[in-house]
Amino acid sequence: MLALSGLLPLGLAGPDRSDDAAHRTALQQWVAAHRAAISDELIGLLSVPNVSIDRDGIAANARKLQQMFAARGMELRVLEGAGVPYLFARLPAEDSSGGGDAPVVLFYCHYDGQPVDPARWTVGEPFTPTLRGEVDDPEARLYARSASDDKSPIVALLAAIDGLRAAGIPPNIEAKFILDPEEEIGSPNLEKVLVPHRELLASDLLIFADGPVHQSGRPTVVFGTRGIITVSLTLYGPAVPLHSGHYGNWAPNPAEKLAQLIASMKDADGHVLVEGFYDNVVSLTATERAAIDHVPREEPDLKERLLIARPDGAGRRLQEMINLPSLNVRGLSSGWVGDEARTIVPASATAEIDLRLVKNVEPLEQVERIKAHIREQGFTVVEEEPDEDFRRTHPLVVRLAHGAGTRASRTPMDTPLSRSLIEAVRRAVTVEPVLLPTLGGTGPLSRFEAVLGLPVYGVPMVNPDNNQHSPDENLRLGNLWDGIVIYASLLRLPPPAANDND
Amino acid sequence: MLALSGLLPLGLAGPDRSDDAAHRTALQQWVAAHRAAISDELIGLLSVPNVSIDRDGIAANARKLQQMFAARGMELRVLEGAGVPYLFARLPAEDSSGGGDAPVVLFYCHYDGQPVDPARWTVGEPFTPTLRGEVDDPEARLYARSASDDKSPIVALLAAIDGLRAAGIPPNIEAKFILDPEEEIGSPNLEKVLVPHRELLASDLLIFADGPVHQSGRPTVVFGTRGIITVSLTLYGPAVPLHSGHYGNWAPNPAEKLAQLIASMKDADGHVLVEGFYDNVVSLTATERAAIDHVPREEPDLKERLLIARPDGAGRRLQEMINLPSLNVRGLSSGWVGDEARTIVPASATAEIDLRLVKNVEPLEQVERIKAHIREQGFTVVEEEPDEDFRRTHPLVVRLAHGAGTRASRTPMDTPLSRSLIEAVRRAVTVEPVLLPTLGGTGPLSRFEAVLGLPVYGVPMVNPDNNQHSPDENLRLGNLWDGIVIYASLLRLPPPAANDND
Repeated sequence: MLALSGLLPLGLAGPDRSDDAAHRTALQQWVAAHRAAISDELIGLLSVPNVSIDRDGIAANARKLQQMFAARGMELRVLEGAGVPYLFARLPAEDSSGGGDAPVVLFYCHYDGQPVDPARWTVGEPFTPTLRGEVDDPEARLYARSASDDKSPIVALLAAIDGLRAAGIPPNIEAKFILDPEEEIGSPNLEKVLVPHRELLASDLLIFADGPVHQSGRPTVVFGTRGIITVSLTLYGPAVPLHSGHYGNWAPNPAEKLAQLIASMKDADGHVLVEGFYDNVVSLTATERAAIDHVPREEPDLKERLLIARPDGAGRRLQEMINLPSLNVRGLSSGWVGDEARTIVPASATAEIDLRLVKNVEPLEQVERIKAHIREQGFTVVEEEPDEDFRRTHPLVVRLAHGAGTRASRTPMDTPLSRSLIEAVRRAVTVEPVLLPTLGGTGPLSRFEAVLGLPVYGVPMVNPDNNQHSPDENLRLGNLWDGIVIYASLLRLPPPAANDND
Repeated sequence: MLALSGLLPLGLAGPDRSDDAAHRTALQQWVAAHRAAISDELIGLLSVPNVSIDRDGIAANARKLQQMFAARGMELRVLEGAGVPYLFARLPAEDSSGGGDAPVVLFYCHYDGQPVDPARWTVGEPFTPTLRGEVDDPEARLYARSASDDKSPIVALLAAIDGLRAAGIPPNIEAKFILDPEEEIGSPNLEKVLVPHRELLASDLLIFADGPVHQSGRPTVVFGTRGIITVSLTLYGPAVPLHSGHYGNWAPNPAEKLAQLIASMKDADGHVLVEGFYDNVVSLTATERAAIDHVPREEPDLKERLLIARPDGAGRRLQEMINLPSLNVRGLSSGWVGDEARTIVPASATAEIDLRLVKNVEPLEQVERIKAHIREQGFTVVEEEPDEDFRRTHPLVVRLAHGAGTRASRTPMDTPLSRSLIEAVRRAVTVEPVLLPTLGGTGPLSRFEAVLGLPVYGVPMVNPDNNQHSPDENLRLGNLWDGIVIYASLLRLPPPAANDND
């Protein structure tokens, strides 16, 4: 109960000290006067295509970002070692009022984006940013790939520096910035820059500036993220697509066998039936449960907006579900559909799956559980393309490929540093922030934790209905304006105080 | 037993009368001397794109065909009424030796083709015919869309007329030809030409010149075809694709629900579990069973060539399976796969299904059985796109669309006309033809049967491994040369004799 009583005040608004209010107002006024210039800078950055695997596009983004940092007197340089341009910049404290105890903060953003399918965008095109509404209307939206995920936080951090300087209250902590060019493909080269640059990156904490705020739209502090590992399954049918009349109901159909396999993995409520899938899950602490109890109920609005009549999870809350591992079929393909449909038995069928992980559930162990489950259903699991003789002698063959995976992370909510961070966010806003033990999404936080030994946090700023990873990705402009004020407050992070219980 | 004893001789080679042998040899020699010209004519026809829904392409094919028929002194004209160019030509008997009893034969071919996906062709392109091998090598193959399905039978029929005339044994029956421009989309306008042109089309029998010969490669006579009706299922998930981290395992996943629905339709052996699915199947007669017993076993070769370790059907023969209705998932799609995969909960999932039918199984009744099955699994079935409120209040919604469907047909094997046809094929070849009660594929035979009151037959000529309906469709040239000789013999079809038992 000590931990719980020590934590509960985190969920309540602290006193609004007059300095805090004055600083907040000064920043808000500065933002209001510079909305057009800030949105223009963001539009300029969004106009540079940034799909992770497009090396030329990523290089063009790196050049653009270097100009933007240089305009603030910072040198944004490539961290050698990865073969892809991870970028780094340092901002010394410009005001000594933070004192020697002021923490060094490493900010993380990524500047790559998910693949795009322009034909499915209904507002503009992925790399031709389209503003719907006036720049002075907080409900206006800017449509483009990475409008939310994750270029706007970069622009917000730079604007926060501009605003603090203009208001005469410049950053009083040392800040460092690392910009990732390959987050959307799982940051496969991250360790190659973290390990050799440990000293350069040394800090007191990492703030992950990515992901949406809570569904309620309230400012949010995140203490962890789910991990992920992707799995791709290919089932083999006949050597070539066969006429469904001449061979149908004799030649085995891989789409049907794949459906049977997927159906075996979950019950009707979405509970995963793979043995051991939930075995290593660490229960939430009382502090974390209390924080979740204070999270506004997002379900009614989500059900209304997303047209969901009955969620999976047998009635459990979204926040509870996010603290459990998941199995999600993110793609299915076999044969042809729609206008392209033809009367064949398909030659193969593919399912793309992502496994989200929580603290203590290891990526590769989760894949092994999937493999064992597939074998139990009578399939032979292979890792390479099976040869013809293998297929002639094995009736149910599944080729399974998987990614390297990223672990989940979860920082305790009641350390002095955690309290200091919550306090900084609270100073910047007039509503009580939402504190989330785990964000549903995944970032490379756990790898910073592992290599640099840092406690890791997330302070997201973008709207939750941003169509992240999908067509029509967008940013609600009001979230950009509020995000700038919050990030400005983080650049004046108060020194951590000892725990009440110390 | 009378029927059986009357039929058994059909399975045995008759005496090789010297006239027949001389005619066969004359035709074979003519073909051997004209291979290059015949294949050039086929290549010219294959070079004209003919996807069913491409109206301009179909019109260009119609013009090309009119030139080809005109070169044989026939007027190929459009049958009015359908809005698409069904084509018709008539060839009077050119030799009176057939006598007044000679049957009038209506030949059916189609000149449209399945959709194409040029990126998946490994030999040439769909409408740039590519010959692999020399024209004098019967194993040479010509690759192009419709090389087998169904332009080569048209060229074979015209070459048969040329060859008979050159050999001084011109056609001694009256032949009619109907060329279908929309077979691959189910000939939706066929009745619109058959009904008003009944008198023009009046004949004694219909010969369907489409489909592959039996797997053994032997000449084949088909007495029926399976029917078909296609069904398209769309399941609805969240209103837009959602980030699989923030929403995954709470937002219901339509790909997973679709997999569960499909899995409920069949057992592991491919037996359909939909109630009533096999109820109205008419058992094969003793004659038909005897014919199937004489069909060479195709399974060992198919398993080897198609890499099938264990067929569906719990050990039943392909020919038995073809005389049963089938349910085939011909396409699946949800979200994205491969390089395009992204970590989302898909917004919808689609399955394309074809239901093959046999004699006495009605298309729309079979669809009703599928609908009832889907409802039994807890889904709500709708026919139109559901509106938002409907989706908010119905957890499992399936939109089901279906085609008009085509019935199956099956002509008795032991009528005088059936015997006459078998005899004509036997005269043209030196191996015993395969007699199939039902071809696995579907054609509009049952609709000719219904509207024109004709007995219907199929005399296919193309190789069974032709990749029909798929990339790399091809024709084995040897099948073209043999097909010409067989079709020439049909153009001298002997008058039907009374049954032995009459």
